[in-house]
Amino acid sequence: MPKAKVYVTLKPTLLDAQGRVLQDALQSLGYETVQGVRVGKYLEIELSPNGDLHAQVEEMCRKLLANPVIENFRYEVEP
Amino acid sequence: MPKAKVYVTLKPTLLDAQGRVLQDALQSLGYETVQGVRVGKYLEIELSPNGDLHAQVEEMCRKLLANPVIENFRYEVEP
Repeated sequence: MPKAKVYVTLKPTLLDAQGRVLQDALQSLGYETVQGVRVGKYLEIELSPNGDLHAQVEEMCRKLLANPVIENFRYEVEP
Repeated sequence: MPKAKVYVTLKPTLLDAQGRVLQDALQSLGYETVQGVRVGKYLEIELSPNGDLHAQVEEMCRKLLANPVIENFRYEVEP
């Protein structure tokens, strides 16, 4: 069954509060090498092999899965 | 600057309520090809190039970023 992997990330210019909290937590645990953390969503979508799956996933991202005002997305479709 | 990409997913045997809601929403939008949706976290961590970064990221995942009882994780470290 084809599977789409979708990665949704906050646009780089926006403050990522959740990432900032994780960065502070990691540094306070002693991971001094951590310079920055950004948190995003990772979605795995199982699809039935009908039609142009790339076009469908692109549309799903624009309509529902990502907020194009504040988020970027990318995706892969595996056959 | 080296960057780690971390993917945290709920274990496959567990019900993914958020994924279920997205699946229903996508199907009600007309995407009948959607057979299942699983939601996970995607983290990008910027690191300074000190020591064994793979070992550090593995440890960060176990200690803080993932809950090993209910979640799986995988990661890549880019130089």
